[in-house]
Amino acid sequence: MPTVRRNDPSELFAAAGAGEHAALARLLSLIERGGPTSREVAALAYRSKRLAYTVGLTGAPGAGKSTLTDRLIALARAGLPGDGGEAATPGGDQVGVLAIDPSSPFSGGAILGDRVRMQSQALEEGVFIRSMATRGQLGGLAVAVPDAVRVLSTAGFPVVLIETVGVGQQEVEVASATDTTVVVVNPGWGDAIQANKAGLMEIADLFVINKADRDGTRETHRDLEAMLDLNEVGDWRPPVVETVATTGAGVDEVWDAVGRHRDHLRADGLLDRLRRERLEREFRQILVARVEERVRSLEGTPELDRLAAALVAGDLDPYEAADRLLGAIAGHADPEDGHRRFG
Amino acid sequence: MPTVRRNDPSELFAAAGAGEHAALARLLSLIERGGPTSREVAALAYRSKRLAYTVGLTGAPGAGKSTLTDRLIALARAGLPGDGGEAATPGGDQVGVLAIDPSSPFSGGAILGDRVRMQSQALEEGVFIRSMATRGQLGGLAVAVPDAVRVLSTAGFPVVLIETVGVGQQEVEVASATDTTVVVVNPGWGDAIQANKAGLMEIADLFVINKADRDGTRETHRDLEAMLDLNEVGDWRPPVVETVATTGAGVDEVWDAVGRHRDHLRADGLLDRLRRERLEREFRQILVARVEERVRSLEGTPELDRLAAALVAGDLDPYEAADRLLGAIAGHADPEDGHRRFG
Repeated sequence: MPTVRRNDPSELFAAAGAGEHAALARLLSLIERGGPTSREVAALAYRSKRLAYTVGLTGAPGAGKSTLTDRLIALARAGLPGDGGEAATPGGDQVGVLAIDPSSPFSGGAILGDRVRMQSQALEEGVFIRSMATRGQLGGLAVAVPDAVRVLSTAGFPVVLIETVGVGQQEVEVASATDTTVVVVNPGWGDAIQANKAGLMEIADLFVINKADRDGTRETHRDLEAMLDLNEVGDWRPPVVETVATTGAGVDEVWDAVGRHRDHLRADGLLDRLRRERLEREFRQILVARVEERVRSLEGTPELDRLAAALVAGDLDPYEAADRLLGAIAGHADPEDGHRRFG
Repeated sequence: MPTVRRNDPSELFAAAGAGEHAALARLLSLIERGGPTSREVAALAYRSKRLAYTVGLTGAPGAGKSTLTDRLIALARAGLPGDGGEAATPGGDQVGVLAIDPSSPFSGGAILGDRVRMQSQALEEGVFIRSMATRGQLGGLAVAVPDAVRVLSTAGFPVVLIETVGVGQQEVEVASATDTTVVVVNPGWGDAIQANKAGLMEIADLFVINKADRDGTRETHRDLEAMLDLNEVGDWRPPVVETVATTGAGVDEVWDAVGRHRDHLRADGLLDRLRRERLEREFRQILVARVEERVRSLEGTPELDRLAAALVAGDLDPYEAADRLLGAIAGHADPEDGHRRFG
């Protein structure tokens, strides 16, 4: 990018919109890194008011998510089934992929190793693949992922696939940031499904039994349907699709189901409502992150030291200490942006 | 309690300290319920500066935690092994049990059903058993549980057993509030252990393989030891103990290991350090909860409506909106306590 200043978000967006993947990669790096430039990138992307359709893929390590994602990329380049809308923008056959590498100590599995398998697609024009971790982004992935999606949306990507590992708290947060969430399991995972039942039901719009050429597929399918029978709520019952991602068997059916789910969400304005609820959650997370940032900025000050000492000594209870600190934060001007008045 | 005013925390504490379980139950109800009286109870308990030794038991539904807890109660009444300290307070043979019923939608399993089995002990003098959920307590269980422990501590209980289900995010938070955490698994749980490896290593001070008269005990024991071999950090390697809680086999060994872990923590001031770190986390959670409470108190105001509309329209990005709202909260006096100055 010899002509683009590497830290100028506006110039980077212009270059990214013109198809320069290096500029796009740079924008996502800025998001990952956190700090004032990250915020500027996020604000520009937000104000573009463009929003890609997002499809999340989640499941334990080894479920075959990467191979499935690789297959879905080819289908996604043709847009979602029946799509004359979102995919019909200029560069409408572009597909963005975010592979989330959870930085939480509670989620195992190195997602990055799997990325090698997706290289075949990464080399093609119009496909942008990116692994994401968080280094210092306030609010962690729950804030970084929506920002990254908006960056890709602003750059003209109509569809973004988001791959995460597991169904822990952090993955649930990421999943709740996508329009359609696909949970990938394998034959024989009855116990794991049973143990995570509540979490799975919370996030899954669609179940995929990958490696369905193996023993135990029928039982796993039956277990999932039984679980769905018990939990039927709302108008959408998550379909259960069997695939063999390595051969491509069943993958078309997955993409069709994603399209049906999108149509379902679009009917009755459900998609808009979901996105608005998501925005509210995101806003609260940013708010909390901002409070924590301000508390950190007080660290090492005599006021905070005095408060901490009184707390540890038991002379001040945590509730009272919190109220006093909040008063201090409130009066504390934002070192970066200057303190703005409300409204 | 005809002589105690049911909403006067000081009187309730006096009665609870004299062994009135009804007063104690009432104090815990107030904590669960949240609100200003809850805060008063929490503050009084905090300032008593008494802190019981807490032993957490966690594991998936059906692992046998309740039966094991029932067995441990009898041992706990004799104090921790080698204990001349904490248990030697007046009423030192009292044992408090908190059975945490997670209100999170992500954790399955109804812990309350299991409680019936613990009734044998509940009827004895000196044993206080209580199921806890959260209804409106700010910050959820992560805040309510430490408060409840301090209430029991203030009432004179030297040991509190805390039972939770699973190893999800919320359980990890509860577990991180206990001095010694016992993770209960069953033979044949290789896959579940593998899937939750990182979370288990994070919280376990001690592993119990319960139902160890069943097939697969040796393999599960070996899997756990192998996992521990790979994760060795620090001076404490979590012991793996086999039990059959229904017959009582191995339960003495569990309690001995808990005592050894407590001795380990006490050496070199580790226990104090852990408790201080815990207090810092708790304090941050209360701080965040307080911010959320203040945001809620702004709901329905024209200022917040204007902000929300600009956000949804894309005219204001979430970062800028958060900063504006924070400015508003800061200036917003606490409706209950009056706005205090810092320090």
